[in-house]
Amino acid sequence: MEKSKKTEHLKRKAEKKLLKDKRKIKKLEKSVVGKKKVEPAVNEKSTEGRNFTISVALPGSILDNAQSPELRTYLAGQIARACVIFQVDEIVIFDESANNSDKTTEGEFSGVGKKGNPNIQLARILQYLECPQYLRKSFFPKHPDLQYAGILNPLDCPHHMREDADSPYREGVVLDRPIKSGKGSFVNCGTVKLVQIDKVLQPNVRVTVKMLPETEKHKKYFEGRVVPPETPRTHGALYWGYTIRLASSLSHVLTQCPFRDSGKYDVTIGTSEKGDPVDDFQLEGFKHLLIVFGGVKGLEAGLDNDEELIGISEPRHLFDYYLNTCPIQGSRTIRTEEAILVSLSALRPVVFK
Amino acid sequence: MEKSKKTEHLKRKAEKKLLKDKRKIKKLEKSVVGKKKVEPAVNEKSTEGRNFTISVALPGSILDNAQSPELRTYLAGQIARACVIFQVDEIVIFDESANNSDKTTEGEFSGVGKKGNPNIQLARILQYLECPQYLRKSFFPKHPDLQYAGILNPLDCPHHMREDADSPYREGVVLDRPIKSGKGSFVNCGTVKLVQIDKVLQPNVRVTVKMLPETEKHKKYFEGRVVPPETPRTHGALYWGYTIRLASSLSHVLTQCPFRDSGKYDVTIGTSEKGDPVDDFQLEGFKHLLIVFGGVKGLEAGLDNDEELIGISEPRHLFDYYLNTCPIQGSRTIRTEEAILVSLSALRPVVFK
Repeated sequence: MEKSKKTEHLKRKAEKKLLKDKRKIKKLEKSVVGKKKVEPAVNEKSTEGRNFTISVALPGSILDNAQSPELRTYLAGQIARACVIFQVDEIVIFDESANNSDKTTEGEFSGVGKKGNPNIQLARILQYLECPQYLRKSFFPKHPDLQYAGILNPLDCPHHMREDADSPYREGVVLDRPIKSGKGSFVNCGTVKLVQIDKVLQPNVRVTVKMLPETEKHKKYFEGRVVPPETPRTHGALYWGYTIRLASSLSHVLTQCPFRDSGKYDVTIGTSEKGDPVDDFQLEGFKHLLIVFGGVKGLEAGLDNDEELIGISEPRHLFDYYLNTCPIQGSRTIRTEEAILVSLSALRPVVFK
Repeated sequence: MEKSKKTEHLKRKAEKKLLKDKRKIKKLEKSVVGKKKVEPAVNEKSTEGRNFTISVALPGSILDNAQSPELRTYLAGQIARACVIFQVDEIVIFDESANNSDKTTEGEFSGVGKKGNPNIQLARILQYLECPQYLRKSFFPKHPDLQYAGILNPLDCPHHMREDADSPYREGVVLDRPIKSGKGSFVNCGTVKLVQIDKVLQPNVRVTVKMLPETEKHKKYFEGRVVPPETPRTHGALYWGYTIRLASSLSHVLTQCPFRDSGKYDVTIGTSEKGDPVDDFQLEGFKHLLIVFGGVKGLEAGLDNDEELIGISEPRHLFDYYLNTCPIQGSRTIRTEEAILVSLSALRPVVFK
């Protein structure tokens, strides 16, 4: 009796809410129509593209905390997903111990199961996940670091698409195929037909292709134009995955910014429980934002081991802002994979405004 | 050469920042001293205790998406950690398919490895994790659902403490020990000496104990008083873990509020990609907040299967607010374990203000 009353109440409440919502929507529709010419709606603005980048840096050492090769792999996948949810453009993996100088994921390493170099393992798994499925066999030969790749949750980004998806841009690999004089290379973009581009490029290179409208249905190939990899973001307002950079120390995270237009990150944020509460944080226009996370021992570990930073006593002094992104934490510790989601969610309204 | 210049620049920047920070701190110290009597600082206020609760509801079915018994267990652990980071007081696990009526985790079930009832498995793992380590052998006999408990990351909450930690409250289990007439029961609170309370209670019950100051060092027992489990939160401003509730359908999540003072959640929030942007969300005083998450198929699955909700067309109409907590998502999907961290971080400034 009591129960059915409650359900009745719930239903009445729902009906009322529906009516209220309908009224709200009507009102909104009216106001949008009225305003349209004065100021563009948020959606319209965002289709113009995003002209800033977000970089996230973290130490690869966090993998060493996982209890099995499977969980080590899963953790890498959590990092990748946290970053793509918030449209991160660059992930920098730094060597907290600053004692190795590996800068690429090339070559043979000891594999994910054997406590190999965690920085390189993390980099490789992140690269693998970012790559559209149809290109993986071209760029990721069998490798011990990818032994447990089957358990990874897919990133499901805009540039990961089905064969028949209609998209203005696609990622592809240049094929090693004979080309007629005056014509461009063939590219596998994961579509039913191959794509012929306007330039002759070296085979096996990954490219971003602007797809041209199909003019003649009977044609054997689609047509496309090679564009810089940032074009889908800057011109199409599409999130287009991340690049990976390996930094051999914490200082190199900050000094080796790869963006050519400015050569540096114009806003740097360090995250720490000891930072200032995020709620007061404001940010004016920026081009390249960098957000740095510590590992199990915080950013202090990276600072203490970095010979180039001798004399700097606190991580706080390395960054423009030093923020505590979860001031009320109910656990004594926040793990790095959690901190990325928590921090980027707290910063989102300030970054994407 | 170029490199060392950049590092030099970094050092100079750090030194400047240090000076600036020192000045800022001095200024702040001055202003705090001046203001203290007019308005209490935030920290002072929070030691008075938290007088509201936060409940999170999610379908247990999300476990069925995990690829192995280990990952199924790990996922449950992710949920627990996400909730404690944001001081969640109650986790409601609902049966999205609304076809089972199990309401406790008692009895024998089929185990975490065999795709048993995911709601009960999730409940059991969450209860296990919430229980302080020194009490687990009293409350969690060997069980197949807990077979992979070894891979779970600890919650590291305030009520999980070491033997020698000094805390105003402790969780304990009443012991089955002879008691002298006029004296209270003995409780194992994970301290070196047992704790004698003021009441005689049934053995094997879990209790929250207010620890009294030790008056005589040579005494064989510590002294304590049994308090309601919410006292550490309301009087000590301490986060004290969560309770678990099983709901046999989505409607029961909303109608079977366990808090006796009001008998209902006074603010309910549904989360969905289709919700209103969280950035405009404001919240006035509340007592019992409920935030509901959907599973793989969203809140729609729970609504469609719920016989008591026939006629309600959209999940939106079930809640006071229907919010999209990540308006810029760069992945087509956000997993429930991610959504909890993302949403609670986005809502934190409004909830804990």
